[in-house]
Amino acid sequence: MICVFEKNVDEREVEKLTLRCQQEGIPHHLFYLGGQYRLLIQTEIDFVANWPESDVVIEMLPYTQKRVLTNCQFQPHTVVKFGDLEIGSNQFCVIAGPCSVESSQQIFSIASMVKQFGGKILRGGAFKPRTSPYDFQGSGQQGLIDLKHAADAHGLLCISEVMDTRDVDMVASHVDIVQVGARNMQNFCLLKELGKINKPILLKRGLSATYEDWLSSAEYILSHGNFEVILCERGIRTFENYSRNTLDISAVPILQQLTHLPIMVDPSHAVGMREFVPSLAYSAMAAGAHGIMVEVHTHPELSISDARQTIAPETFAEMMQKLKSMAPIFEKHM
Amino acid sequence: MICVFEKNVDEREVEKLTLRCQQEGIPHHLFYLGGQYRLLIQTEIDFVANWPESDVVIEMLPYTQKRVLTNCQFQPHTVVKFGDLEIGSNQFCVIAGPCSVESSQQIFSIASMVKQFGGKILRGGAFKPRTSPYDFQGSGQQGLIDLKHAADAHGLLCISEVMDTRDVDMVASHVDIVQVGARNMQNFCLLKELGKINKPILLKRGLSATYEDWLSSAEYILSHGNFEVILCERGIRTFENYSRNTLDISAVPILQQLTHLPIMVDPSHAVGMREFVPSLAYSAMAAGAHGIMVEVHTHPELSISDARQTIAPETFAEMMQKLKSMAPIFEKHM
Amino acid sequence: MICVFEKNVDEREVEKLTLRCQQEGIPHHLFYLGGQYRLLIQTEIDFVANWPESDVVIEMLPYTQKRVLTNCQFQPHTVVKFGDLEIGSNQFCVIAGPCSVESSQQIFSIASMVKQFGGKILRGGAFKPRTSPYDFQGSGQQGLIDLKHAADAHGLLCISEVMDTRDVDMVASHVDIVQVGARNMQNFCLLKELGKINKPILLKRGLSATYEDWLSSAEYILSHGNFEVILCERGIRTFENYSRNTLDISAVPILQQLTHLPIMVDPSHAVGMREFVPSLAYSAMAAGAHGIMVEVHTHPELSISDARQTIAPETFAEMMQKLKSMAPIFEKHM
Amino acid sequence: MICVFEKNVDEREVEKLTLRCQQEGIPHHLFYLGGQYRLLIQTEIDFVANWPESDVVIEMLPYTQKRVLTNCQFQPHTVVKFGDLEIGSNQFCVIAGPCSVESSQQIFSIASMVKQFGGKILRGGAFKPRTSPYDFQGSGQQGLIDLKHAADAHGLLCISEVMDTRDVDMVASHVDIVQVGARNMQNFCLLKELGKINKPILLKRGLSATYEDWLSSAEYILSHGNFEVILCERGIRTFENYSRNTLDISAVPILQQLTHLPIMVDPSHAVGMREFVPSLAYSAMAAGAHGIMVEVHTHPELSISDARQTIAPETFAEMMQKLKSMAPIFEKHM
Repeated sequence: MICVFEKNVDEREVEKLTLRCQQEGIPHHLFYLGGQYRLLIQTEIDFVANWPESDVVIEMLPYTQKRVLTNCQFQPHTVVKFGDLEIGSNQFCVIAGPCSVESSQQIFSIASMVKQFGGKILRGGAFKPRTSPYDFQGSGQQGLIDLKHAADAHGLLCISEVMDTRDVDMVASHVDIVQVGARNMQNFCLLKELGKINKPILLKRGLSATYEDWLSSAEYILSHGNFEVILCERGIRTFENYSRNTLDISAVPILQQLTHLPIMVDPSHAVGMREFVPSLAYSAMAAGAHGIMVEVHTHPELSISDARQTIAPETFAEMMQKLKSMAPIFEKHM
Repeated sequence: MICVFEKNVDEREVEKLTLRCQQEGIPHHLFYLGGQYRLLIQTEIDFVANWPESDVVIEMLPYTQKRVLTNCQFQPHTVVKFGDLEIGSNQFCVIAGPCSVESSQQIFSIASMVKQFGGKILRGGAFKPRTSPYDFQGSGQQGLIDLKHAADAHGLLCISEVMDTRDVDMVASHVDIVQVGARNMQNFCLLKELGKINKPILLKRGLSATYEDWLSSAEYILSHGNFEVILCERGIRTFENYSRNTLDISAVPILQQLTHLPIMVDPSHAVGMREFVPSLAYSAMAAGAHGIMVEVHTHPELSISDARQTIAPETFAEMMQKLKSMAPIFEKHM
Repeated sequence: MICVFEKNVDEREVEKLTLRCQQEGIPHHLFYLGGQYRLLIQTEIDFVANWPESDVVIEMLPYTQKRVLTNCQFQPHTVVKFGDLEIGSNQFCVIAGPCSVESSQQIFSIASMVKQFGGKILRGGAFKPRTSPYDFQGSGQQGLIDLKHAADAHGLLCISEVMDTRDVDMVASHVDIVQVGARNMQNFCLLKELGKINKPILLKRGLSATYEDWLSSAEYILSHGNFEVILCERGIRTFENYSRNTLDISAVPILQQLTHLPIMVDPSHAVGMREFVPSLAYSAMAAGAHGIMVEVHTHPELSISDARQTIAPETFAEMMQKLKSMAPIFEKHM
Repeated sequence: MICVFEKNVDEREVEKLTLRCQQEGIPHHLFYLGGQYRLLIQTEIDFVANWPESDVVIEMLPYTQKRVLTNCQFQPHTVVKFGDLEIGSNQFCVIAGPCSVESSQQIFSIASMVKQFGGKILRGGAFKPRTSPYDFQGSGQQGLIDLKHAADAHGLLCISEVMDTRDVDMVASHVDIVQVGARNMQNFCLLKELGKINKPILLKRGLSATYEDWLSSAEYILSHGNFEVILCERGIRTFENYSRNTLDISAVPILQQLTHLPIMVDPSHAVGMREFVPSLAYSAMAAGAHGIMVEVHTHPELSISDARQTIAPETFAEMMQKLKSMAPIFEKHM
């Protein structure tokens, strides 16, 4: 059940109730949303209704599902805002950049290109989850510094991936959005830590995660206090291996029925071959996505990682142009 | 290897060469395309080059792949034409109608609605591949008669599925396009028979067919003489079972690189829930498809089969409207 | 619902009831099992209970599932018998032979080897479902004649695949068991025809068929009158493509809970590499299978088809030896 | 390439070479195995051969694959030893215990039962990777203390899962084998930390990991210095969802061809229903596994987690009995 407190409740009253839960040994989660404290208590309403500590509660809501906070009943619509930039509204947001930050010069020139053609957020990996231990593992914190510097210089926001619970605060201090990669979607310790920080999280779908698995992972973040989660479909693993993964485009409209969280699409990882990236980007907008995340490089063939799926400036420019002309039909603006 | 004959070759010369192949016990396939006979012989060029019968051949082409006729090297682009209507060009063709023909009245009123909102081809199953033997198996030949009648009355073409080699000629006599369903995509006996008829074939992708499997099935039809094959992506089977199947939208641009055959998308079977059908239809056009095939019904909730994925007239009307406004951006017209 | 008639019911009484169903337009299936007629009528008991024609019915059973005849409630245990040989009891039956019948000499020498090491049924394809139209399509009816001849000469039974409804009677006239391949598991027209013949059917699991799909296909055969169906797990299609398919060994114990039909395993197609076939054969027995079906050849490397997964005589001999020593532990005999 | 040093090389010489690599900016990995230092340098032999530092190298081996240390060419066969107990030899090792350590009493009584029927290693989760944040997350370090205590009291070894890089040393200090769960198989930061400890690692296969992905994850551990890795197949995610996962039994013989590492099977997670666990355990031995890991409980129905797949003492006793009678046939002992 969920206890909803009045807007200006004395925090000590809230604390009394959480204390009581602790004493009774009942799992519970406190979160603050829309100016109100809400306390999720894993027990029946009847049980709690008799506690004197619950007198300050203005509403008691039952819940029957495994997921609570990511459901639309809980909240109708989440919009992640950075000044004018919004993810989850009728803006269509483009995140673009290289697979990996390779040098300050590389990320600087790519940032310039991203800005020029209308991208809003610069991506760039500094801690890379590579299948082989002998592949380039990323340039680490220096990469984040370079990324942030390049983004700032061009009026862009930036996003990068975190892989280790020990790095959460450090990564979060450099970027505007913290990314969880597909391979860590069920790294629950990491999700819990990300629930405690004050930066939006972009949560990629795991290679074999069902919609429920994915939303349960988001629920980990929300239930630990961070409500700014952006979902990102990036292809699932199927029997078809001509493409790197199989983009599950249906996830876009379906997730919007299942949750209030924004949903984006990463066509680059989904298909893994650059010539098909624009078509999938158009599909993403047509399906109703709130934005896309693409790998671009001033010299794709020189990318240390994911070269095969990285698009060139001309392709990016042309793709952005077409997305802009599509946008009004889908009641989006860019 | 492939022997290409000159345009006005004496047919007896061609026959001599096929006869030689028979005598040598070498598998071979003769087909006529673009005003020329071509003889595919499953052996090396060197072997054939010495035959006196090969003197009339103007070009000898090697091939190394399992597929020949469905490759773009063989032919750049196939357009299936019915008067003004084209599938495979810059027209975007909409096939619509009920899952099953239920009565002459039902199909007649649906045909009227399909026509009104801009559909070009009427679909309707008469022989239904149902998972359970106790489900409605279709209304058989009478269904085809009703379908054809309803299509004719509204100036539409029509399409229906064939399941049995014994029914090929009968079904083909009633419809403009013969459909092969996903479950029969590797019913090779059926494909061979369809290679011998003079009607276009719409070949749906099997639930677990790779692109290569699918094109090899198309190759069966082409190699038996029928070059008018339209591919139709309709969702594949994956671990995600929230939706009926998983639409593999990447198949649309990828197949256009792998083959010259037109490719359409069936969003209804792909997702299996009517509220998501329009989004997937828009995605299909955005990804570059040559058209879509959707299940519509004047009273979806009364459908004997597939009710859950069948859209209502208002949804169809709205969807067609949006597709028309999208079309110019993708250099298509409807 | 299912109407059960008394054992010596006058057939005209049964006919009256089926006639009534016809008049009412209600789908129904009559079958004879265990000395009793049973009539499956797709409607509620209440509806039928009032008909005077139903007075001869001794029991009326409701059913709520899509499957009826393949359920254990309907029948506890099916054993397919050929004299002393049984499939579905505590015998462990080995079906062995080449992928394709290539010549009378080839199949004769393989039959001799199969017999020598304890195989009971000779397999050999004459109509081959090949992915590519340019691959060897089988030797046709002559292959069946050679297969039967080789089996007879060595006191073996024989099995071969049918692909076309038009060939059902012909194939059935040559073999002891008729096989339905994975690609035709949902060729419902074929299944219906096989429901009308008087030979046991070995029904392979489709590449992406769930247990329910598979049993529904078996239900097609049973509901058309043929109760002798043997299931054969042969690997499913998954993301892992190192092996040809993924053997779903759990299907063996699970299917024995879901149905009364015997279940065998084909390790050759499941893994596709001969060095792993014996390990999977042992696993099949350990999991409780009623037998296995393996591809063997006196000269595996010379096989026209499936050479890579075909085992040599020494491997077969050793495998049979080990299976025999395992059998008592699993209360089986060979 | 790999530089192999002589057995009693002066460590300062080795250091010189690693220093040179650092100066050249070439990725490299030093490991010690079989009494020899080996230095994996990610460059060509020709490049290194000219360095004066390489004079102390007795052999230079090229490698072309992404994986080196997990390949059979590198090492023929790994046996993880704990006194008399061996994993990877002809012993068949049984790991058993509850899904979660729930109380000291619970784990104590289960340990007693495991010991009684012949299990060698006690399992019990203290840090649980649960899909939902509201499910029991494990009893933490106290659980490990209880587990170790119960194991010690009954002469068993113990194993438990680690999920967080920050917990690696703590968990390793309590258990004999550290487990990496399926959801963390590509948590590369965790794998790197586990490569630095001195305890064997049991690495479960990820839900959608190919054999190559899985071995690459093992390679992470080996390349960071820990060569004692045990693989554990625990079912993969496929379209079939009647069972929890699909046991890929073929992985057992195939992995033994691809790597020298021991391989075990977890039938409990693979199928998720207790009635099928014994059949899969027998299959595992029949396929050649080095052991199994099963969930057992004195009162399965009272398990806080995974109750449905946990077997009761009588089933465990019977299963162990049958495994013992099978073992000699497969040249194993228990």
